[in-house]
Amino acid sequence: MSYTYARNCWYVAGWTHDLKSDRPLAVSILGEPIVLYRTASGRVAALEDRCVHRLAPLSLGRCEGERLRCMNHGLLYEADGRVVEIPGQERIPPHACVRGYAVVERHGWVWVWMGEAVQADPALIPAAVGLDDPGWVLGHGQLDYAAEARLICDNLCDFSHLSYVHANSFGASENWARTRPQVIALERGVRFQRWLPGEQRMRLRGQGVGDVWSSYDFVLPGILLMSSGAYPEGTAAACGGNAPPPELKEQATGVTFTSQAVTPLTDRTSRYFFSWGPRRGQGDETLRDALMQVAFQAFGEDRTIIEAQQRVIDATPEPQILPTSADRGVTMFNNIVRKLARLEAGAASPVSESRAMS
Amino acid sequence: MSYTYARNCWYVAGWTHDLKSDRPLAVSILGEPIVLYRTASGRVAALEDRCVHRLAPLSLGRCEGERLRCMNHGLLYEADGRVVEIPGQERIPPHACVRGYAVVERHGWVWVWMGEAVQADPALIPAAVGLDDPGWVLGHGQLDYAAEARLICDNLCDFSHLSYVHANSFGASENWARTRPQVIALERGVRFQRWLPGEQRMRLRGQGVGDVWSSYDFVLPGILLMSSGAYPEGTAAACGGNAPPPELKEQATGVTFTSQAVTPLTDRTSRYFFSWGPRRGQGDETLRDALMQVAFQAFGEDRTIIEAQQRVIDATPEPQILPTSADRGVTMFNNIVRKLARLEAGAASPVSESRAMS
Amino acid sequence: MSYTYARNCWYVAGWTHDLKSDRPLAVSILGEPIVLYRTASGRVAALEDRCVHRLAPLSLGRCEGERLRCMNHGLLYEADGRVVEIPGQERIPPHACVRGYAVVERHGWVWVWMGEAVQADPALIPAAVGLDDPGWVLGHGQLDYAAEARLICDNLCDFSHLSYVHANSFGASENWARTRPQVIALERGVRFQRWLPGEQRMRLRGQGVGDVWSSYDFVLPGILLMSSGAYPEGTAAACGGNAPPPELKEQATGVTFTSQAVTPLTDRTSRYFFSWGPRRGQGDETLRDALMQVAFQAFGEDRTIIEAQQRVIDATPEPQILPTSADRGVTMFNNIVRKLARLEAGAASPVSESRAMS
Repeated sequence: MSYTYARNCWYVAGWTHDLKSDRPLAVSILGEPIVLYRTASGRVAALEDRCVHRLAPLSLGRCEGERLRCMNHGLLYEADGRVVEIPGQERIPPHACVRGYAVVERHGWVWVWMGEAVQADPALIPAAVGLDDPGWVLGHGQLDYAAEARLICDNLCDFSHLSYVHANSFGASENWARTRPQVIALERGVRFQRWLPGEQRMRLRGQGVGDVWSSYDFVLPGILLMSSGAYPEGTAAACGGNAPPPELKEQATGVTFTSQAVTPLTDRTSRYFFSWGPRRGQGDETLRDALMQVAFQAFGEDRTIIEAQQRVIDATPEPQILPTSADRGVTMFNNIVRKLARLEAGAASPVSESRAMS
Repeated sequence: MSYTYARNCWYVAGWTHDLKSDRPLAVSILGEPIVLYRTASGRVAALEDRCVHRLAPLSLGRCEGERLRCMNHGLLYEADGRVVEIPGQERIPPHACVRGYAVVERHGWVWVWMGEAVQADPALIPAAVGLDDPGWVLGHGQLDYAAEARLICDNLCDFSHLSYVHANSFGASENWARTRPQVIALERGVRFQRWLPGEQRMRLRGQGVGDVWSSYDFVLPGILLMSSGAYPEGTAAACGGNAPPPELKEQATGVTFTSQAVTPLTDRTSRYFFSWGPRRGQGDETLRDALMQVAFQAFGEDRTIIEAQQRVIDATPEPQILPTSADRGVTMFNNIVRKLARLEAGAASPVSESRAMS
Repeated sequence: MSYTYARNCWYVAGWTHDLKSDRPLAVSILGEPIVLYRTASGRVAALEDRCVHRLAPLSLGRCEGERLRCMNHGLLYEADGRVVEIPGQERIPPHACVRGYAVVERHGWVWVWMGEAVQADPALIPAAVGLDDPGWVLGHGQLDYAAEARLICDNLCDFSHLSYVHANSFGASENWARTRPQVIALERGVRFQRWLPGEQRMRLRGQGVGDVWSSYDFVLPGILLMSSGAYPEGTAAACGGNAPPPELKEQATGVTFTSQAVTPLTDRTSRYFFSWGPRRGQGDETLRDALMQVAFQAFGEDRTIIEAQQRVIDATPEPQILPTSADRGVTMFNNIVRKLARLEAGAASPVSESRAMS
């Protein structure tokens, strides 16, 4: 990977409903080939997708109970990555094993920890909303990008692009670009929030008339969690531009929630997972489908400009950006990534790190 | 670019009729991404196609009067490349600008000067014939090559290929290969001329019976300007193989003119622009269309062999050519390119050049 | 080529019936572009597919009697590679020649010797069975791989893959993987043979009931020659697991023969040629077609896993294999290749070799 990503994070590898038993699934995260499979007992295993024998992908293999058999010459793997059988051979070399990844199913997604499995902490899984959550009526989709993940993350940390990239789909006004949101540091991410008085609102159906409060967290490794809802006109002014107090929150109408995840597949390819829809009782399947139609148009607009941006970057000898004041959140998030990556590198090679710091 | 091209030249970037207002046009010349756009007042601007902010292509932008707005985060560019607005930010850094290119519309083509804009001299634009020239009935077309431009230029400087590459389309006899044209040095190119007595003429309609005088200039950076016409039989002999005298030129019949331009897009891709047709009064739209049909067949034959040649070159560790006596004009033209490129490099880095020459 | 192949071998370049007169055929072997053509007198010539003049491929050329003319600027080549005509030029430089390859048509294939032509020894052409051999009823086909040839050779030297890769097509039992064949060193290859008692046999039609004796040679540079046939039940036991004695061989029923050839086209592409069918009198065209149907399915299965294996290898920084006891034949064959390649390198550069050996 030419860009440095943090490893001690949970990356979204796919939708839990796409992982059938008897059907290993090949994914690539941070350029590492990974096979996911559901064992006979129903749990998910994630292994390095590369047989120790002759490097055939285990994702072309066969699920056998809790195990996975390579269908090249039959080596059988335990769910932790150890080879437990070599057909026609008694002895199994002790180093015959592939890497096993910590993996958790939660909120409708399969999350893979790319750091050392022993350090995997499920408490760090972001609070996405699953497709089966009874509180929401959610649609979902995914898009593959011919671009590095960080460009998609940058884009999600600066919504001033809405005024231009999404002028057609969302019909966002130029106020998105001409004003700045509140940007708040979180431990593993950044919070962006702002009021959208009536005239600034986007061409979205279902939100009641009034001022819209929009707030989202963008957290490691590239997860966006956003809710927005409408309040009576004048609420924005009454709150002095700050977040509505908890007792007001119950009164919001037209509330929607979207969970989004950016996963670096390889150096120059990424997968973008997303769900979106209204709070149950404040919107139905018809509204959900209308929102998803807008979402697919808008996320296609993002992809068009980001893939074009990637091509320009790749054709530029020493690409350099010129940040604007709209980049504050982008910079904050990238610093969090960089700091964690540096910590990880230091933990992995303490000597060279201490030398660099002396 | 792995091959050295001259920069202080006018390269054809496109047809003027393809440059609509409100529709920026992306081109690449010498590997540099360039956006062309027509301003509200009707003139053409050419800028580096790479926003200073995050490198999105300006060719996805929006024309606003004389200016161009990047549709990523809204930076607004003056036609000379300066950023004049960053939405939501007062201060504009003084170095916020992209490169502006000198650009001229003439003879139906948009010409871009790839050297320093201050050195751009419109007098150096070759005398192509525009599609709207009332003296000619012209068809036109263009072809993209997966090959470097210099191979196309080499091909256009040695018409001995007509006997073999175009045996089918033009029906050219082997005399094209077995005899040599007059090759005359010009200041910025090479002139090729020859008589084609009756039996050597190509399978082209519209030229009167007789001896055909064919003459073309191939000038920097890769522009071919050719006219041919028929004279009474015996004229070639009467002229002793030399050009027909000016007073005779009025008597030529079946006269056609073709303008052609080779533009290096990237290291291994090129664009070939061409027009062709009879002198008005000596041929009509039917003849023009017949000529264009032959031209498309012939230029497709060129592309087939040149792209194949490129693939062989790229698969050869240290490719070397073995010039023949037919390569005289090729060598002359390449020396002109090399000399100008060397001059440019010297002007750009006087110290290293003077060291190299001591 | 990133992997080292032996050059002093006959590589299969194509089927003799695909080489029409008047139609030069472009092939690539070991990354070298080669043009094959059939001369007016009916013999086959093989030349470097790269004109000395400007490197256009001669495979776009025109057959003229025993010679081949480049259709770029008309250079004419003798069948040994010498330029014998440059149109419009008297003098032909003495070094104007391309490499000529030793080439032989035999057993229905065109074989090209990739070493020095003077060392080419037709006695080293493996004993494949040609499509026109009256003793057999053969079908044939070929497949292109996006993978290096050695991976295909490795696969053909270890039939334990039959139990897994071909579980569907051949319906091979796990006994192929759980037992090991006899592996016998040959001078330029390896012999693999084994008995398949009734219960181990594959889902193939046409073999009589009983024990099947399967034996194949895999010889330089990557040629597989295999025959199998059925004997009365109990024969395997009576032979003590060894080859059936010559006097028994006449009694075999359901005998089939397959010839297969693996040719490295480039570093990462290969061509796989194959024929298969019953001994005449022991099977007819219907059986042949049934066998070919299974073969196409099976060889497609091989390609799927080998191309996937190649992609994993290419994405792995320092790929390493972990051989099993099933790899004995693979290792033997690769050692033969390596030894011959080393000999060739030594012959080519005696000084450095003798230094390495001191």
